[in-house]
Amino acid sequence: MSDDFGPLDPGPRLLLGPGPCDVHPRVLRALAAPLVGHLDPYFITIMGQTQELLRRAFRTSNPLTLPMSATGMGGMETCLVNLLEPDDAIVVCSAGFFGQRLVEVAERTGAKVTPLEKPWGQFFRPDEVRDVLKRVRPKVLAVVQAETSTGVWQPLDELGALCREHDTLLLVDAVTALGCVPVEVDAWGLDAVYSCSQKGLSCPPGLSPVTFGPRALAAMERRRTKVQSWYLDLSIIRRYWGEGAERLYHHTAPITMVYAMREALMVLHEEGLAERWERHSRNAAALRAGFAALGLTLLAPEGYQLPQLSVVRIPEGVADAAVRTRLLREFGIEVGGGLGEFKGRAWRVGLMGYNSRPEVVLQFLGALERCLVSAGGKVTPGCGVAAAEKALAASSA
Amino acid sequence: MSDDFGPLDPGPRLLLGPGPCDVHPRVLRALAAPLVGHLDPYFITIMGQTQELLRRAFRTSNPLTLPMSATGMGGMETCLVNLLEPDDAIVVCSAGFFGQRLVEVAERTGAKVTPLEKPWGQFFRPDEVRDVLKRVRPKVLAVVQAETSTGVWQPLDELGALCREHDTLLLVDAVTALGCVPVEVDAWGLDAVYSCSQKGLSCPPGLSPVTFGPRALAAMERRRTKVQSWYLDLSIIRRYWGEGAERLYHHTAPITMVYAMREALMVLHEEGLAERWERHSRNAAALRAGFAALGLTLLAPEGYQLPQLSVVRIPEGVADAAVRTRLLREFGIEVGGGLGEFKGRAWRVGLMGYNSRPEVVLQFLGALERCLVSAGGKVTPGCGVAAAEKALAASSA
Repeated sequence: MSDDFGPLDPGPRLLLGPGPCDVHPRVLRALAAPLVGHLDPYFITIMGQTQELLRRAFRTSNPLTLPMSATGMGGMETCLVNLLEPDDAIVVCSAGFFGQRLVEVAERTGAKVTPLEKPWGQFFRPDEVRDVLKRVRPKVLAVVQAETSTGVWQPLDELGALCREHDTLLLVDAVTALGCVPVEVDAWGLDAVYSCSQKGLSCPPGLSPVTFGPRALAAMERRRTKVQSWYLDLSIIRRYWGEGAERLYHHTAPITMVYAMREALMVLHEEGLAERWERHSRNAAALRAGFAALGLTLLAPEGYQLPQLSVVRIPEGVADAAVRTRLLREFGIEVGGGLGEFKGRAWRVGLMGYNSRPEVVLQFLGALERCLVSAGGKVTPGCGVAAAEKALAASSA
Repeated sequence: MSDDFGPLDPGPRLLLGPGPCDVHPRVLRALAAPLVGHLDPYFITIMGQTQELLRRAFRTSNPLTLPMSATGMGGMETCLVNLLEPDDAIVVCSAGFFGQRLVEVAERTGAKVTPLEKPWGQFFRPDEVRDVLKRVRPKVLAVVQAETSTGVWQPLDELGALCREHDTLLLVDAVTALGCVPVEVDAWGLDAVYSCSQKGLSCPPGLSPVTFGPRALAAMERRRTKVQSWYLDLSIIRRYWGEGAERLYHHTAPITMVYAMREALMVLHEEGLAERWERHSRNAAALRAGFAALGLTLLAPEGYQLPQLSVVRIPEGVADAAVRTRLLREFGIEVGGGLGEFKGRAWRVGLMGYNSRPEVVLQFLGALERCLVSAGGKVTPGCGVAAAEKALAASSA
């Protein structure tokens, strides 16, 4: 009756878009481990280890650090609905698709949302943030650390202190950041942070790690209203994840995905955070050298370019769809198209987690060159690969 | 730095609680398949197949049938927040933990919630439902088909027509039902239904299949307010899952879990729905024969006992924890403890999906007998297994 659909057979892919990325082989194996119950002593051990490994990844000692049973977007909503009540004020720094989305999701809480908008592809300076904090005095300031639509790397190191001065909670979208670049939750004074499983951590999509610091917790305990989403209500969920050791049943934890996240975090810590960040930086430099040789320019300004995600302008006269379709069909390589105002005008190329490797850079540039030439681009075949090779040789010298 | 945690090693388990259950071996293998992107043509094919297989499982032609990226409880909230707006009226039939939970989650929508309460372990007769519909005239009536706290099987076949008479939408919790007993969405006139991945379908926990019929859709299109949860807002999600073929990005679909669900549904349909239901019924009869021989009685009244989940009273003088701990430690078998008022007074024993097998019945009863004897229960060793064997022989004769 259903064998008309045949066996699962995804075929070879190299996922170089903005996520999901390829799952680390050790994580793929962890996914096939048999289940235990969500209250099994073994699973409770695994939960505790996962939380501890997440704290190390987030560079925090926050007790309330756990993976939500939802994707990164569910993590965004988790932070907003737990921190905000109707009529609270929030300022959202928005210079890209995910800044806009924060505005959209925040508006559903009944909070008063003030977007601080800049053109897509820009970042926010501390003085701009200070001005709006002084003017609005919001309960929450939300910022995207790694804007997945533009490839911009938003500096956060001064924002925590600014928010403390104004009695504002600092909420950070680290969806595309965690496992690729530093996310210094404690050192930078980030009060609430959400991320995802399928980018820097090289897990499948499905979980959203979150962490909440003491100031966020205090605000959550002062709430006058219930959290509008029961499924995302941390005041209940934290009682399952270990607070008070009661292991209160809230929902059935996604056991398999927690196995996967624990394994991915083990891989991360065995490599070392500093080594991980350095690897992303090195391979990004090689990719950028290749792009430069091919005449492709990045959207993000120099000095604010994410190593894990390069958003490049599509050259004049080159058709977006033709190149991406050929990359996928002929080379099994996925890159992302542009979002919003960059639809059809940019490609988003991720080298995240497991995929940030020298051979991936060379493989991708080789394929891209061929596609560009046949799509009418003015490139000298081989020059992108050669430039990347040179950069790689220099960085390992 | 983290190798102190060692490799993932869950150890042998037989999951006979109320869920999660053991994952089917074919599904475990599907979980380890490499990712493709969430907009990859191959994944779009897989999504369409998964939806079609879900429709067959739900016995519906509803176009809006898909797995939500959340566990069963997320599915419950999805249905409530998409159907209800502030000040709408909903009646919830509540005779167990999950009926109560429906009340709790519904209250967060701002709707006026009228619980129709009966003692735990009872079911609702059509005349009782008619009375409350006539009195309250609610927009939505919510009913739990398989109450996981009591093992009661709520008949639904007359409720669809009753709801239509009163212009009420019928919302059904089929979390513990799908893949075990009939869920006749179209024939019974169920307007919105949610289930889960980790019970009758023998997937890991993490997804919640939902289906919405034309009357529910019409109500959703007449909404005056936005759905309060952005993450669970079907008016956006349905545009990713194929409506209008635009594949609008909402969140990154949990690719791996969708692979798993597709495989589990293939397993279901290769067996056949009627055969699946019959298998659950046959093995439940054997388990009940064993329970009877051991002097254990079911909470649910005769004729309303779920085949996939038997909730039995713990005999006088037998300590709940001692038996469950020994079952887990010595035999690797998990059963569920009682919920709410049955905490410490009942065990919940699931034979769901892959785990509904004759050898599982015998293995479990053999282990239970030993634990009962050593916990001071008055049982004749061997009598439970013998009774189950006799029932199995009779059913295969």
